[in-house]
Formats: sequence, C-alpha cells, structure tokens
Amino acid sequence: MKKRLETKPTLYPLPAVVVGTYDAEGHPDAMTAAWAGICCSEPPCLTVGIRESRLTYENLLRRKALTVHVPSVDLVKETDYFGLVSGRNEDKLAKTGMTCTPGSEVDAPVIDRFPLVLECRLVSTTKLGSHMLVVAEIVAVAAEESVLTSQGELDAQALAPLCYGPAGYYGLGELAGKAFSVGKELL
Amino acid sequence: MKKRLETKPTLYPLPAVVVGTYDAEGHPDAMTAAWAGICCSEPPCLTVGIRESRLTYENLLRRKALTVHVPSVDLVKETDYFGLVSGRNEDKLAKTGMTCTPGSEVDAPVIDRFPLVLECRLVSTTKLGSHMLVVAEIVAVAAEESVLTSQGELDAQALAPLCYGPAGYYGLGELAGKAFSVGKELL
Repeated sequence: MKKRLETKPTLYPLPAVVVGTYDAEGHPDAMTAAWAGICCSEPPCLTVGIRESRLTYENLLRRKALTVHVPSVDLVKETDYFGLVSGRNEDKLAKTGMTCTPGSEVDAPVIDRFPLVLECRLVSTTKLGSHMLVVAEIVAVAAEESVLTSQGELDAQALAPLCYGPAGYYGLGELAGKAFSVGKELL
Repeated sequence: MKKRLETKPTLYPLPAVVVGTYDAEGHPDAMTAAWAGICCSEPPCLTVGIRESRLTYENLLRRKALTVHVPSVDLVKETDYFGLVSGRNEDKLAKTGMTCTPGSEVDAPVIDRFPLVLECRLVSTTKLGSHMLVVAEIVAVAAEESVLTSQGELDAQALAPLCYGPAGYYGLGELAGKAFSVGKELL
C-alpha cells in the first residue's frame, strides 16, 4: 500500500547536465539542468525543460544550437554553481576557470573539462507551463579519451556521471545487470 | 581534446522506468523505458519516448493515462524482462508474480512491488522518428513507506533507483553534494 506524496516531479535518477550556448555577443555561457532526457533513437533526440526567462533559452533560440555536457562527480561544485547564477550577471566559465572550444557541428561551445558532450541542433520548443520543452537533435557526440575503454567505449566508472536524486547530486553506483540481458532468466 | 564517438543517444544517467497501462480488455501491462525525463515543474510533466508499434503506446492513447514506476535495483531482472517481451504475447505481470491496483487519479495500473509511482495524464504525442515523444502531466505521486524517511521524504538509499548507464543498469552511488547548495562556495 503506497502513501501519497506531494505532486511534484519526483523521478530518479535524472541526468545533471550542463547546457552550453553563445549569447548575443558570442560569449559562451553554461547552465545546469536536471529536467533533461533522451526521447528518440533515430534521429537521436533529447529533451530539456528550460524556463523561458533564462539566458540559455534566449541563446539557443537565436543560434538554434546547444551543447549538453555530462559532468563527472568531481565537478559537482562547478555544476551546482552553473545553476545558481545567471550568465546575465556573471561570466560563469571565467569564474570557474573553465575553457571551451567551438562545437564541431553546431554553433555552441564545447566546455573542455566536462568529459562527454552532445552537440545538438534545435528541433522545437513548446510552452508547457513554468518550463519550455526544448527538443533537440544530437548531431555529434565526443568524449575525453580518459573516460573511454581500450575498445573506445564509454567506461561508466571513469565517466562517473553526476546523478540527480532525492537530496541532490549522487555518483553512479555499481553495475547491477546488462540491459536486454539480465532479464532473459525470466523468459 | 575530445574524441568523436558514434552519434547515438549517449546521455547518462537515465531513469530506467516501468510504464504501466491497461490494454483494450482492461488487462494491465508493463513496459520498460529509459528514454524518459522530467520536462516541467508547474504543472509537473514528464516525457517518455516510445515506439509507435508498442502495445503501451496503443494503450496510453486509448485511456489517455499511464503510470511511471521507479524500480529499485533489486528488481533489475524484472525491469529488464519488461523490456524484452511484448504484452501482446505474454502476461508480463503474471509471469513475474507482480500484482497491481488501479491508479487513484488515472485509468492505469499501479504495480505494487515498485516503490515509487507517478500517475500521469496524457498531454500530447509528437512523432520524432523511430519514437513518439509522449508528454504527460504527473497528477499523483505515491511511494512505499519503506522508502521514506521518518519525515516522510524519499530516502535515496532505501529507494535505490535503477540507473541506466553505459553498460546497462546501475545502482545509485553516494551523495556528492546538495543541490542549490554545494556550488555556493564558488559565489
């Protein structure tokens, strides 16, 4: 018998991502978002929920482009900071000493210190209420060599993606089972 | 310097959720999805990416309702199994010995063994390519007492939500920092 809780967006884990955009002057900005997820395999697309008032939203509309970075758990302070202040008031990358390079496929910045980045092209925006639903197509994926196995695949323990959970940010735990595999016992 | 990877939906962690619906005969079905996320705070909304051919998609269109369950890591086999077979061919709940009760707010089943459930009303569907983007409003949230703290809040270690990562399903790791808090050091 389940107990009723407050009706809030209570889904875990969520990815704690950092969205990169260029502002009107071409200056790079970064904003943290946990309202994000994958929504399509072919073409690969993701969703991000962003408040209409955010600089990031204004920026991504202008250039139809954004980057979505997966931070490692050791960048938890920087990631949280990117969600605390607006790029309208502070140069967040300068403040954290982070550098970036232009995206290879889209007009948005790739932040060097985050180990994994998805370069995305804007597909659509829809007003839902407090947030705009942004759908974007992933047109390039790149990662630091340090988070890849010798076979060139992502290594979960090296990537150590930041997980958004009930009390804040968590690390990723141990492998519990392979997908499309561990459930075959029940077939 | 980042290395280019295959252009695939490479975002981690993702929630490994189980979507509950009733079929045309009112029989409950369950399907696993990792293409899911939150997209709005007010009203609370989530997205799920589902292939148009899936029984779950047909079902949620008919009743305009779905339940989204967060499985604990100890239910990894059952969760993977729910993604391996179709409810058109097998009674997945019966096969796993799982029981359910009707949702309190929507016309979809609440599966008893999953510790956290979001009852959702269909808002919209949009064809993106391989998957339909389903947007749904969360109209009720309920959890087992066993995953709540004495203050009635979700306990991350007790909930132990299943995390979808590079090689499959993972547990949730240790708390790395509180949200809107750990980054204040950089202000």
